[in-house]
Amino acid sequence: MILYINMNEQRILAVEANNKIDEEVLIKGFLQRIRLHGKVAFFDLRDRSGIIQVVTTDEKVIAELGSLQVQSVVEFKGRVKERGERYKNANLPTGNIEIEITSDFEVLSKAAEMPFDMGVEELNLQLPTLLDYRTLVLRNKKIADIFRVQASILKGFRQAAESKNAIEIVVPTISASATEGGAEVFPVKYYDYDAYLTQSPQLYKQMMVPIFERVYTIAHAYRAEPSVTTRHLSENTQMDMEIGFVQFSELLDILEQVIVDTLKFAEEENKEILSDFRIKEIAFGSIPRLKLSEAQEIIYKEFGRDVRGEKDLGSQDEVDICEWALKNHNSDLVTITHFPTFKRAFYTMPDPDDQELSLSFDILFRGVEISSGSQRISDYNQLIEAIKSRGMNPDNFALYLQAFLYGMPAEGGFSFGLERITMHMLNLANVREASLFPRDMERVDVRLKKNQQKES
Amino acid sequence: MILYINMNEQRILAVEANNKIDEEVLIKGFLQRIRLHGKVAFFDLRDRSGIIQVVTTDEKVIAELGSLQVQSVVEFKGRVKERGERYKNANLPTGNIEIEITSDFEVLSKAAEMPFDMGVEELNLQLPTLLDYRTLVLRNKKIADIFRVQASILKGFRQAAESKNAIEIVVPTISASATEGGAEVFPVKYYDYDAYLTQSPQLYKQMMVPIFERVYTIAHAYRAEPSVTTRHLSENTQMDMEIGFVQFSELLDILEQVIVDTLKFAEEENKEILSDFRIKEIAFGSIPRLKLSEAQEIIYKEFGRDVRGEKDLGSQDEVDICEWALKNHNSDLVTITHFPTFKRAFYTMPDPDDQELSLSFDILFRGVEISSGSQRISDYNQLIEAIKSRGMNPDNFALYLQAFLYGMPAEGGFSFGLERITMHMLNLANVREASLFPRDMERVDVRLKKNQQKES
Repeated sequence: MILYINMNEQRILAVEANNKIDEEVLIKGFLQRIRLHGKVAFFDLRDRSGIIQVVTTDEKVIAELGSLQVQSVVEFKGRVKERGERYKNANLPTGNIEIEITSDFEVLSKAAEMPFDMGVEELNLQLPTLLDYRTLVLRNKKIADIFRVQASILKGFRQAAESKNAIEIVVPTISASATEGGAEVFPVKYYDYDAYLTQSPQLYKQMMVPIFERVYTIAHAYRAEPSVTTRHLSENTQMDMEIGFVQFSELLDILEQVIVDTLKFAEEENKEILSDFRIKEIAFGSIPRLKLSEAQEIIYKEFGRDVRGEKDLGSQDEVDICEWALKNHNSDLVTITHFPTFKRAFYTMPDPDDQELSLSFDILFRGVEISSGSQRISDYNQLIEAIKSRGMNPDNFALYLQAFLYGMPAEGGFSFGLERITMHMLNLANVREASLFPRDMERVDVRLKKNQQKES
Repeated sequence: MILYINMNEQRILAVEANNKIDEEVLIKGFLQRIRLHGKVAFFDLRDRSGIIQVVTTDEKVIAELGSLQVQSVVEFKGRVKERGERYKNANLPTGNIEIEITSDFEVLSKAAEMPFDMGVEELNLQLPTLLDYRTLVLRNKKIADIFRVQASILKGFRQAAESKNAIEIVVPTISASATEGGAEVFPVKYYDYDAYLTQSPQLYKQMMVPIFERVYTIAHAYRAEPSVTTRHLSENTQMDMEIGFVQFSELLDILEQVIVDTLKFAEEENKEILSDFRIKEIAFGSIPRLKLSEAQEIIYKEFGRDVRGEKDLGSQDEVDICEWALKNHNSDLVTITHFPTFKRAFYTMPDPDDQELSLSFDILFRGVEISSGSQRISDYNQLIEAIKSRGMNPDNFALYLQAFLYGMPAEGGFSFGLERITMHMLNLANVREASLFPRDMERVDVRLKKNQQKES
């Protein structure tokens, strides 16, 4: 929760009015809702601290209000008054008071006519409209609240990472080769050369292990997946950590502590918002750690679906195993380990006891994967073999391999998807709702049109 | 300063040994320096907390040490001992102790032969070598320290922005059009469409003003400038803030408070590093605010160079005016305002008293510009005219303009260059030294080679 402190000597914020009863104050904000009742008019004024009810019987102001669109920006002086008992609203932080305009009603910016009704608590718009009118719909509290929660997740992650002695690093997003393989990449014309947008900060954070041992970064990651699902963004935000001198079980300990600390922080800071979204408290019982095969066995026994032998968990598997974990371990989180080696990126350490399986893991949260990671291969020669075995050229990994050539401890790490965590903390239907400006195959701010298409 | 806390029950960190005198401890790290003296051998062990001296008379260990390259990773048990008085080193946090190996000396990772001597305090390498061996040279404390300071700058900025009620936002870096004009952009092949890397988070942070009033973001910015100077990176990190309901003088107040708070935090957290770099304490006297023309007048009077009427400050002007500010106002910072309107971006508000000049500003720090910003045009129609007057098409700004169409208060903001601040806090010769992985015309991790060049 942000403590709203006003830095302007004259203007007060909506929530500050609570301490100014019977005083005359200067206030500025957006007309969120206007109600004209003949000789008296009310409006809700919105500023960064919240909403406050304003009342006026001034004929000139009422006439002006009648000509204004909501979202217009106004400032005025008014007297703060306690509302009559029957008009008090316990659900609003300023619900006991209202402001009566005294003088100097000034329109700072006139809004155009709204394309839809902005004066309601829940907008209930379809996703394309939510995105076509992004800067407008975000003026709805409930939609803006998604990004208040997101800001808390970022802060919670940083605090969690720093409590583990990790130092923040800044990593680049332009890469000379399509290094990680797998998912598709976006090419960049880099001066006279071909370059690519990085699919993750992975290789860079690993390179920092011999320097700082423990690092974290919050980085953009780009995936040119030619699909439009509710779970994927072409540009997303990763919260990454990498840890040296660590073995698999300690790595899992740190992973689980970091995500628990992050979620607890975000939950604590946003109790009211989570309540508005009708979200249950997160169950932080004890997080089960299951091998993929063990999870599949549970799904077979408890849910009667035989997915044993599959190389990954399907969407329904993730839902089922989370249901099982909540019921049996009071945990909204489950750690799944030991995915098949060939299904994971080249730098993933195979399990010494069974090379077909890997020391990899995902964290599931309320039915969906929000994190993955692994113990890494830290031996230079083994890493070169792993790169070659995936049909890639070690020459394209020159700087990365240098870190391993000159001494690298056992290490591992993980990555959290910021938008996915936001989405599942708030039970949103689509990850695009958890991105201020989502990028996908069909949209970069505006819907991409055929006539913007390349002539090639 | 990071408080180094060890999370591993067995391993202790170098600095923790200070509290373990006469105890046997498990320790892990990198061989930073090896000194063999016949029947006794010493080495410096480096871990994330620092360096500790290790001594051994064990013949087997000495033989093994003789065959190892520095930067190899080792673990062993040893007894912590107080050094004899004449061997104590007051300059080292572990200078009163050393560890004598007792047993279990294990080599975790063998380093290859060093391309240059890594056992010295100052590497004194040329920039291309610093970058060609990036992952190796960063193992030198003094070079890694640059990025400890950088992490503090990031943290200090976030705290400063949050203390002003700004909320963190995440903005995209892929844009559908080359929106800001001016500097060159990098094209991205975005599925079947043409897109571009954003030159700054500018337009997105402005769009958030009607929602959160005060926002900040730490974002990558891309400039395809075809020049290789010591001051420019093709991909850099901006610390941006944008503030609604603000007029020019209050905006300058916030700007100056944020940079002062950021620098003070970074200075406080890194006293030892700044002392190692022989950096004087930052002078935070009172920051002079000068119009460009006033600064030019001072340069003419005090330094005898007539740059009056020039449209911007040159490099020497920046140096001179900072010298003047330090001498006359005990300030390493100077705020310069009122640059010519046509020299600044389209969204810059012209001065109502003189449309040829703008309500824009730069902050200079120790002879170089580290920040710029302005009061913005917040009127929809005026903004459209400004876009057209620069020969750009308002259609390419559809979502941006939407924010202004539906009510926008007076607003302004600013941006700090993270790498530039790092560079000038530490008096580095080249901004590339202040980026872990600098991108420029000639390098993306490795030097770009002709045969990587596009065949087009």
